[in-house]
Amino acid sequence: MNTNGRETTRPRDLRGLFSPQSIAVVGASRTEGSVGHALFRNLLLGGYTGVLYPVNPKARSILGVKCYKSLTEIGEPVDLAVIIVPGRIVLKVLEECAACGVGNAIVISAGFKEVGGDGVKLERQLVAIARKHNINVLGPNCLGLVSMDPATLMNATFARDMPMPGNIGFISQSGALCCAILDYAKGAGIGFSQFISFGNKADVSEIDLLAYLGQDPLTQVILMYIEDLSDGPEFVRVAQGITHGPHAKPILAIKTGRTPQGAAAASSHTGSLAGSDEVYEAVFIQSGVLRVETIEDLFHYAQAFPNQPMPAGRRIGIVTNAGGPGIMATDACIRYGLELAKFRDYTEKSLRFQLPATASLRNPVDVIGDARHDRYQAALDAVCADENTDATVVIVTPQNMTDVTEIARVVVESAGFSKKPICACFMGLVDVSAGVDILRKGNVPHYSFPEDAMRAMAARCSFAQWARTPLKDFKTFDVDKNTVRRVFETERKAGRTRIIEVRALEVLRAYGVPTAPFELAATAEDAARAANDMGYPVVLKIASPKVLHKTESGGVKIKLADEAAVRAGFDEILANVKSKLGDDLEIWGILVQKMLPPAKEVILGVTRDAKFGPLIMFGLGGIYTEALRDVAFRLAPLRPNVADEMIRDIRSYRLLEGVRGERPSDVPAVAEALLRLSQLVTDWPEIQELDINPLMVFPSGDGAAAADGRIILAESAE
Amino acid sequence: MNTNGRETTRPRDLRGLFSPQSIAVVGASRTEGSVGHALFRNLLLGGYTGVLYPVNPKARSILGVKCYKSLTEIGEPVDLAVIIVPGRIVLKVLEECAACGVGNAIVISAGFKEVGGDGVKLERQLVAIARKHNINVLGPNCLGLVSMDPATLMNATFARDMPMPGNIGFISQSGALCCAILDYAKGAGIGFSQFISFGNKADVSEIDLLAYLGQDPLTQVILMYIEDLSDGPEFVRVAQGITHGPHAKPILAIKTGRTPQGAAAASSHTGSLAGSDEVYEAVFIQSGVLRVETIEDLFHYAQAFPNQPMPAGRRIGIVTNAGGPGIMATDACIRYGLELAKFRDYTEKSLRFQLPATASLRNPVDVIGDARHDRYQAALDAVCADENTDATVVIVTPQNMTDVTEIARVVVESAGFSKKPICACFMGLVDVSAGVDILRKGNVPHYSFPEDAMRAMAARCSFAQWARTPLKDFKTFDVDKNTVRRVFETERKAGRTRIIEVRALEVLRAYGVPTAPFELAATAEDAARAANDMGYPVVLKIASPKVLHKTESGGVKIKLADEAAVRAGFDEILANVKSKLGDDLEIWGILVQKMLPPAKEVILGVTRDAKFGPLIMFGLGGIYTEALRDVAFRLAPLRPNVADEMIRDIRSYRLLEGVRGERPSDVPAVAEALLRLSQLVTDWPEIQELDINPLMVFPSGDGAAAADGRIILAESAE
Repeated sequence: MNTNGRETTRPRDLRGLFSPQSIAVVGASRTEGSVGHALFRNLLLGGYTGVLYPVNPKARSILGVKCYKSLTEIGEPVDLAVIIVPGRIVLKVLEECAACGVGNAIVISAGFKEVGGDGVKLERQLVAIARKHNINVLGPNCLGLVSMDPATLMNATFARDMPMPGNIGFISQSGALCCAILDYAKGAGIGFSQFISFGNKADVSEIDLLAYLGQDPLTQVILMYIEDLSDGPEFVRVAQGITHGPHAKPILAIKTGRTPQGAAAASSHTGSLAGSDEVYEAVFIQSGVLRVETIEDLFHYAQAFPNQPMPAGRRIGIVTNAGGPGIMATDACIRYGLELAKFRDYTEKSLRFQLPATASLRNPVDVIGDARHDRYQAALDAVCADENTDATVVIVTPQNMTDVTEIARVVVESAGFSKKPICACFMGLVDVSAGVDILRKGNVPHYSFPEDAMRAMAARCSFAQWARTPLKDFKTFDVDKNTVRRVFETERKAGRTRIIEVRALEVLRAYGVPTAPFELAATAEDAARAANDMGYPVVLKIASPKVLHKTESGGVKIKLADEAAVRAGFDEILANVKSKLGDDLEIWGILVQKMLPPAKEVILGVTRDAKFGPLIMFGLGGIYTEALRDVAFRLAPLRPNVADEMIRDIRSYRLLEGVRGERPSDVPAVAEALLRLSQLVTDWPEIQELDINPLMVFPSGDGAAAADGRIILAESAE
Repeated sequence: MNTNGRETTRPRDLRGLFSPQSIAVVGASRTEGSVGHALFRNLLLGGYTGVLYPVNPKARSILGVKCYKSLTEIGEPVDLAVIIVPGRIVLKVLEECAACGVGNAIVISAGFKEVGGDGVKLERQLVAIARKHNINVLGPNCLGLVSMDPATLMNATFARDMPMPGNIGFISQSGALCCAILDYAKGAGIGFSQFISFGNKADVSEIDLLAYLGQDPLTQVILMYIEDLSDGPEFVRVAQGITHGPHAKPILAIKTGRTPQGAAAASSHTGSLAGSDEVYEAVFIQSGVLRVETIEDLFHYAQAFPNQPMPAGRRIGIVTNAGGPGIMATDACIRYGLELAKFRDYTEKSLRFQLPATASLRNPVDVIGDARHDRYQAALDAVCADENTDATVVIVTPQNMTDVTEIARVVVESAGFSKKPICACFMGLVDVSAGVDILRKGNVPHYSFPEDAMRAMAARCSFAQWARTPLKDFKTFDVDKNTVRRVFETERKAGRTRIIEVRALEVLRAYGVPTAPFELAATAEDAARAANDMGYPVVLKIASPKVLHKTESGGVKIKLADEAAVRAGFDEILANVKSKLGDDLEIWGILVQKMLPPAKEVILGVTRDAKFGPLIMFGLGGIYTEALRDVAFRLAPLRPNVADEMIRDIRSYRLLEGVRGERPSDVPAVAEALLRLSQLVTDWPEIQELDINPLMVFPSGDGAAAADGRIILAESAE
């Protein structure tokens, strides 16, 4: 089920939306400057290959095309209705769609959820009609959809521009941004396969569209602009399916509302509740989606992917005709996480024969300012053939002797031969433009500056690594569900949502999360026996559902070293809490817990989000989490590699590797605890929050143990 | 003195270089495609306002201009010689310059330091001639110099292009990069005041050029591309003079070789030794230079400055006709350290009257997709007038009703009236281009995407803040130089460069750096008396110039709580070290030191760089410095505000503010210790390295104290 309440098997069949045989434009208009006119003209002049039916009760024809008074009047099968009528009438038109068997609609009209109040109600009614009659509805409040499939050629938008054909699929939550992007793409020579503004996504969601583009043979790379996601786990599932395996397609996304202030603007804009940025970061990491910050990067990266082999690694060769830009490229290479290739001996030897004495033969190869295409050819041949190179960046500055167009031809030719990706940076704008045209026609990604080239190459290498790394299967541990069920039922019955420590530890232990040895003792006698069994020193803690602040109530005794101390401590705790909180306090007993030797302290936590489900947190204990906010989040359920990765993700991970001669900490034990926690919160949706603080982590091989646990159940019992 | 050995009073008189009345081009050539031809043609066709003399013994005329056999033959005063002859002959030409009274030369020719070997020698000879005859020499191995001063109009380069006139001064260490930049600027419509490639900077350095541009009335913003700096402290002095006060000019710099790999490429490229990146970072921070990563940012930022008022703060108003880009701008605003302005009530009230009901009246103001220029006018008037707004970003997406050119006119008009800066983001490339032209002519900075606009605005706000914050004067403390002199002389005489702890502590104490009470005791009796005087507990440490590892040699006793323990400890230490290191070990006594209560531990350190002088380091002790590398550097001498700033600069500064209810640490005491340390290492150039590790920092008001200190003197005694 997605959050819209429709049961889905994805991908939904959206073929009628993307490649309709016939389109009715309800609200097509003769009035120039109106949306109804602009949209119909775009369809008509855009070269649509099917049949168009303008619908307008007041017009005989629009732009020479016979007009119909209503959908019903058409009397022929219609695959798609594009609706541009005032909000209330939209519902009527949708009912008419149902009556006429129109299975797909694009609602351009605004005045729905985004205006609040009655608009919200109207949108709810729209969804009900769509569901009832099984109509795919894109929008409302959107710019529309463009398909550059030559078999369809449909510009069902009211934008000023028809995009160029290409292999980028673009999905946007903002219609206005689409206009700006179309204008930018026109100037920059960027083409699209499909271009969709999805507006309020009342029915067809960004995930449906993503799934469609994932299967669309014309689309080689998917770009998204989103302000929120409808369903986090479903997005992860669909995106992983697209970004993985031998036919992986990259997905690049801009998610705004990244800062708290930005998120506030988002919710007033779309009426949708944006989640916190940590959740989105986790979603993108887990789905292999490359998150980018700016539109420029979005298109820079997008260019890097189509028609290019996947790099096998991150070792970059650089060929340049100028030292300065070579240094800039080297800096950028390292800054963006790539490696400067170390050439094999024969590469330098072969270069020595072909380049002048002043050339630099090591990476970056400097063919010197007066180089013409023959030197570039020699350098590219050698560098691309080197086994230690995974990809090559070619830099050309326009100097006096530089034959820009010939060099461009050489680059295109090398890119055609090589099984490794090449990208080019012809620096400047005017003198290099003839060369840039040749690169573009030859499908070689091109950038004006070395940093952009290197950053795009880094995105490509990251994606290649993600796509070829198999997702490890989810691991399922044998666990004791009965104990958990018993604890939760008992607590529920007693009307408690905050589970006290001893019960929380039982739940953790039932799922195999290691805990410090503990026992609930009803008497001093019991406590002494338990302590003798587990060994000293021990801690005693009051176990009462009414005592929230154990230490402040005198309910904790630590470092008890022998039986006598335990007996005395037991009585003292009881006396303390009773004197503070009254004699009739509900007390279950006293928790006897073995005191663990000093160790690294980490925190594992879970919070559950309405849209995203359980979100798992990991961090180092104390100041690292509280003051330095050095934590990592991932969505449950965790795959084993994701658990490993989130531990390594925190800045202070080095402290777990052991500093100043310490032994490294038992990171695999932490990873297993994370996986068991993931299974626990996935099995038990009633867990609203959970904290293990701290999990004591011992040196490598010695494991870990939870020293304290806290579980909060959801308020609404089922 | 600069590092080239010339005594300078800056700015050097470079008028003859930048605005010569007459130029001799030695090596001008008739051969098309040669550098000597290209350069002479550029001068001739570039509109140079003075007299040109081509010098070439084999030609009668070049491009119709009478040619001279030698400089001597000209027989008229020549202000500048541009030299394009083979390396060895350059020296001869320079001698001829001296003979003819030519005071300025641009040496285009390569084959000097950058090729190593004999080239290094040649360059040394070149410098000697320049020094001897007081000739300003730019280069060698450079592209040349362009002055767009209408009174001069000199293109003394062999680049393909003449730049457009403008107000950007550009200084570059890479000639090839200049070519690329000229081409980019041509396409992007960016103009320059002065454009200089300085090559090997054998004589005229980047600092001389910077000082010149700082005074040049045509130059409103200075851009630098540098691979190394000749003299760090001098750069700081000159740059501070330019970036400060009411007539402050911004300096934007790209410094490559940022990563270790990049630096390696730089040193092979220029033959100059690049310093480590931390030093450069410190230099830029202290001089108010904005360091940028990419050429694109360099020009984006550069556009933001000229002809614009300085923002008084960081509170940004946003006006947009589309929600999505408004959110992107809001995100970027926060990400780049700006604040979203909170409008005053009357602003929202006035907007309510003038904008449609669906408009968003709060920041970002959304004038809605069908807005024309009148709505932009109303919104801009209100937002710019709001007292809570320091600057405004206007976003326009090209939608159906958008009258791009009229809106551009409104923006230009508002920018003209307003005392606050405005920048514009007309999204897209083609449909908005007519509007962008109007903005450019109206001197309104323009960007294609909201992130770029906001980042440039952030650079402007940071610079404005820097420029208006007075540099606090250096503080000079009363100190006891005699003690320091005595210690250093004694150690020097004994041939020791590594000063042992007790002497290092004496030096620190002499400069008022607080130390834990200490005394050197010759006998157990002395030690007991000292301990009684300072109070218990105490630490005893062996004091011997031969014992480097005190703890490992059994030379340390801690937590001694009474007199008996001190006496016993004294004897035990002596016995330990003698048994390990022999009876005839040189022992000065035993250091008795008061043990301090637990406190936050910080590290203060100094290393001295040949080019940059003493570099001061600050960090939190232990893992923060060692494992997390969380440290800040600044060049000595420190101004008081710089000391404060470097403490706040580290990521873990929050730990000094007090977390988990702790009292905040005594940060002012740390700042004073840094200033005293700065005075110490400035007064005593023989200090090569110095460490205070740890400085114990007590809660606010309780001060700080050095618990251990280490000083290393330079090897070469004077």
